[in-house]
Amino acid sequence: MNIKLVLNTLGKVILIEVIFLFFPFLVSAIYGETCIVAFVETIGVALTLGLSLVFFCKSKEKNTFVKDGTAIVVLSWIIMSVIGALPFVFSGEIPNFFDAFFETVSGFTTTGSSICTNVEKLSHGILFWRSLTHWVGGMGVLVFFLAISSKGQQRTINILKAEMPGPSVDKLMPKAGTTARILYIIYFVLTLIEVVLLWVGDMNLFEALVHTFGTAGTGGFGIKCDGLAGYSAYSQWVITIFMLLFGVNFNFYFLILLGNIKTVLKSNELWVYLGIYAASAAIIAYNVTSMFNTAGEAIRHSCFQVSSILTTTGFATCDFNQWPQISRTILVLIMFFGGCAGSTAGGIKMSRVVVIFQSMRNNIRRNVRPRSVNKIKLNCKVVDENMERSIINYLALYVVIHVIAVLLISFEPFDFETNFTAVVSCINNIGPGLGVVGPAGNFSGYTAFSKIVLSFSMLMGRLEIMPLVMFLCPDFWSKRSR
Amino acid sequence: MNIKLVLNTLGKVILIEVIFLFFPFLVSAIYGETCIVAFVETIGVALTLGLSLVFFCKSKEKNTFVKDGTAIVVLSWIIMSVIGALPFVFSGEIPNFFDAFFETVSGFTTTGSSICTNVEKLSHGILFWRSLTHWVGGMGVLVFFLAISSKGQQRTINILKAEMPGPSVDKLMPKAGTTARILYIIYFVLTLIEVVLLWVGDMNLFEALVHTFGTAGTGGFGIKCDGLAGYSAYSQWVITIFMLLFGVNFNFYFLILLGNIKTVLKSNELWVYLGIYAASAAIIAYNVTSMFNTAGEAIRHSCFQVSSILTTTGFATCDFNQWPQISRTILVLIMFFGGCAGSTAGGIKMSRVVVIFQSMRNNIRRNVRPRSVNKIKLNCKVVDENMERSIINYLALYVVIHVIAVLLISFEPFDFETNFTAVVSCINNIGPGLGVVGPAGNFSGYTAFSKIVLSFSMLMGRLEIMPLVMFLCPDFWSKRSR
Repeated sequence: MNIKLVLNTLGKVILIEVIFLFFPFLVSAIYGETCIVAFVETIGVALTLGLSLVFFCKSKEKNTFVKDGTAIVVLSWIIMSVIGALPFVFSGEIPNFFDAFFETVSGFTTTGSSICTNVEKLSHGILFWRSLTHWVGGMGVLVFFLAISSKGQQRTINILKAEMPGPSVDKLMPKAGTTARILYIIYFVLTLIEVVLLWVGDMNLFEALVHTFGTAGTGGFGIKCDGLAGYSAYSQWVITIFMLLFGVNFNFYFLILLGNIKTVLKSNELWVYLGIYAASAAIIAYNVTSMFNTAGEAIRHSCFQVSSILTTTGFATCDFNQWPQISRTILVLIMFFGGCAGSTAGGIKMSRVVVIFQSMRNNIRRNVRPRSVNKIKLNCKVVDENMERSIINYLALYVVIHVIAVLLISFEPFDFETNFTAVVSCINNIGPGLGVVGPAGNFSGYTAFSKIVLSFSMLMGRLEIMPLVMFLCPDFWSKRSR
Repeated sequence: MNIKLVLNTLGKVILIEVIFLFFPFLVSAIYGETCIVAFVETIGVALTLGLSLVFFCKSKEKNTFVKDGTAIVVLSWIIMSVIGALPFVFSGEIPNFFDAFFETVSGFTTTGSSICTNVEKLSHGILFWRSLTHWVGGMGVLVFFLAISSKGQQRTINILKAEMPGPSVDKLMPKAGTTARILYIIYFVLTLIEVVLLWVGDMNLFEALVHTFGTAGTGGFGIKCDGLAGYSAYSQWVITIFMLLFGVNFNFYFLILLGNIKTVLKSNELWVYLGIYAASAAIIAYNVTSMFNTAGEAIRHSCFQVSSILTTTGFATCDFNQWPQISRTILVLIMFFGGCAGSTAGGIKMSRVVVIFQSMRNNIRRNVRPRSVNKIKLNCKVVDENMERSIINYLALYVVIHVIAVLLISFEPFDFETNFTAVVSCINNIGPGLGVVGPAGNFSGYTAFSKIVLSFSMLMGRLEIMPLVMFLCPDFWSKRSR
C-alpha cells in the first residue's frame, strides 16, 4: 500500500469537508447564532490537519490500486465523521463525543438515525450541517473529490468502486473523473428542482433546503419532532416522489439524457423496484384505511412511508410503529431491499435482489432438470458466474454482519424488536426502526458501546461491507499483494 | 414421473405407519384408556388405504429417478401427517383437524411446537403416539422403508437424498438399503441406551420412552406443562448429553465403529458444532448466574437449554423467555445453526455453516488478492464449486422462506418477536420460540390459516426446502424431463 498517497488524499478530503463546513457557518451568520464559533473552530482544526497532510505527504505514484482505494475510502469516511462531529461538540448542542459521532456517521451514511431527544432545540446552523452531511454522503465525498480533481488518472476507478453503492460500477465514461462529474451534475440538478418545488409550497428556503438534503441523500434527518406530519399534503407528495427518484439508478438518468429511453424501459431492476413499491404501498394503504379519515389520506401516508423506507430515507409523516402488524412487517421487510444500485439509497440494492432471485430460480431448475442451462440477466446484460457468486456471497456476509451487530447490542435492556430493527435500520441506512427506536422515538437510550457498534454498522452498510471487512482482514496488511 | 410407482410406494409407507400405530394402541390397552378406539379406527382407515394403493397401483419400473423420489418424499410426509392426525381427532383429545394436523406435522418433523394448552390432560396412548412421531420422523420413515424393503434397487438413493438432512448423502455403503439399515441400527442402539439410563433415574418406563423419543428425533414434545423442570438433575444431564449426541453426524458413529476415529477427529463440522455449543453455553451460564441459587445450577440449565436449541430439540428445564436479552438473542441465533448434517437435527446444519463461512472468507481474500486460489474443505474433503454454489443458494432460499412465512402469519395480532421466532422455530424444527410462543406458552392462539402456514414451514424445514419447492415448480410437472 502506498501510505503517502493515502494520507495525501485524506488531506484533500478534509479540505473538501472544509468547503462544505463553510455553508452552515454562513447559515449561523445569517441567523446570528452563537454556534458560529463552533464552525470557526472546526474549520480551523480541519484546515490545519488537511493542509499538513497535503504538504507533508506527497507521492509520485498517481495510480490507486485496489488496496489504496479501499484504505482511502475507509479512512476518509472515519476521519470525515470525526471532524464532522466537532461542531456538535464545540457548540455544546450535542456535548458527548460518542453521541456527536453517531449523529455525524448517521448523517454521512444517509441513515438518519438520531440520538436527539428534542431536535427542535438545535440551532439553524447545526441543523443545516446535520442535513448537509446527508447530501454530501449520499453521492459520496470521494466521488465529489474525483469530480473536481481527477485529471485523467487511469486507476481512480478503484475509489469509485469502493464508494459507489451496488455490485458494479457502470463506467458511464471511460474516465472515472468524467463519470463522477456526470453523476454530480445529475444529483445537483435534481436537488435544485426539489428545493424550488418545496419552496413554492409551505416551506421557507431553510426548510426546503434541509428537507431536500435529506431526500437527495435518502438520509432522513428532519427538523421537527413530528417529522413531516406538520407540512402540507403537497410538500409530502413532492418528497414522496423525489425519494423514489433518488432511489433510481443514476445511470438511467444519464441514458435518458442521451435519449436512450428504450434501454431504461427494458431494465428489470427498475421494474422490480417500482413493482415492489406499488405492491407494498397498495397493501399497506388497504390495511391502514380505517386509521385515517379518508382513503386519500391513507394512500398518501402509505405511499410516503413506503417510499421513505424502500429508498432507506427514513422520513415519516406518522408513527408507523402504531400500525397493524402486517404493515409493520412489510415495512421491516422492505428495509432490506433498498433502492437501485447506483442511487443514493442503502439496503441490499434492487440489482442484487434481482440477481439473487434469478440465481435461486436457476438452482431450483437445475435440481429439476440437471442439464438445463439458465442465465442471469440484469438490465439486459448477462451476469457472469463470478459476479453471481460474489453477489450471493455478499448476501451471506450481509446476514452475518446483522447477526453480529444484533448480538453486540443485545447487552442493552431493550426488547428483541427494538434491537433487531435498530440494527436493520442502521446497516441499511434507513433511520427509524420499530419499538423504542420507532419514528416517534430515538437512539439516545443506547450506551456509548452500542452507539459505536451502530455507528460502524452504518458505515458497513454505506460502504457495502467489503471495504471495511477487507480493511480488517490480515491479508490486507501483508506485503505480498498490492 | 412414474405415478404408479409413486402411489405404490405411498401405500407401503402407510402400511409402515400402521406398524408404528400399533405401539400406542398397546399403550392404551395397558393403561385401559378409551382412546384405544381411536387407534383401532385409524389403523382401519390406514390399512384400507395402504392395501388398496399397494394392490391397485403396481409398476414394473423399480428405479426411482429424481422426480419420483421427490414426489414420494413430499407426498409421503403429507399423507403420513394426515393419517397421524386421526387418533387425535377420533379420540376427541384434539378435536379440531387443523390443530391435530399441526401437532402431527410438528411431531414427524421433530419440531415439537404444540397447540395443547394443557398437555397433562392427554391420555397415555395419545402422548405415546405424539412422541413416537418424533422418533419415526427423526431418521425418516422412508429411510426406514428402504432399510426394511430395498433389495438392491439401483436408484433408491434419490429417496435417501431427498429425505436425509444435510447438503449431501455420504453413501456409507454402495447400496442405499444397506446405508439405511446401518443408520437405523445406530439410531436404535443409541435410543435403547438412553431409555435405560433414564429408567434407572427418576423416570418410569413410560416417561423414559417418551422423553427418549423426543431426544432421539431432536423433537421436544414433553408430557408435563413445566417441561423437564420437575425431573432430577441426573435426568436433565442425561438428556443434555443425548441431545448433543443425536445432533452429531451419524456417519461419525459409523466411522467410530469401523475404528476410524482419526477421520472423525479431523472433521471440521464436528469441531465447529462443539465449539459453538461450548461458547454459547459458557456465555449464557455466566449471564444467568444471578437467576439461580448456585453456579452449578446455572451451568446445568444453560447447558441443557443450549443443547436443546442448538440441536433443535426444544425441551426446556426453565422459561428462558425470562432470561436477559443477550441470552435470549444467543438462543435465537443458534436456532438457525442446527446440528450436523446426517443427524436428526433441523436448522441450516453445521456442514452448510462451515461451507458458507469458508466461501465468505474466500470471497474476501479474492477481493484483497484477485489471483489467490482458495479451496473449501468439509470433513477433509474438498467442496467443489457446484456444491458451494448450491449451498449458498440454499441459504438465499432459506432466508426467503423465512420472510414469506413471517409475512403470511403477520395477519395475527401478535408482536414481531412472537411471529418472527414462531417462524424461525418452525422452519428450523425447534419447538418453542420467544414471547407468546416461548417455552411456557404454546401455538394455540394462532388461526387455522397461520397453523397451516406454520405446518408447511415445518415440512419445508424438515425436507430442507428443495423437495417441496421443486414439487411446486411448474417445470417439475412438464413431460420433457424425468
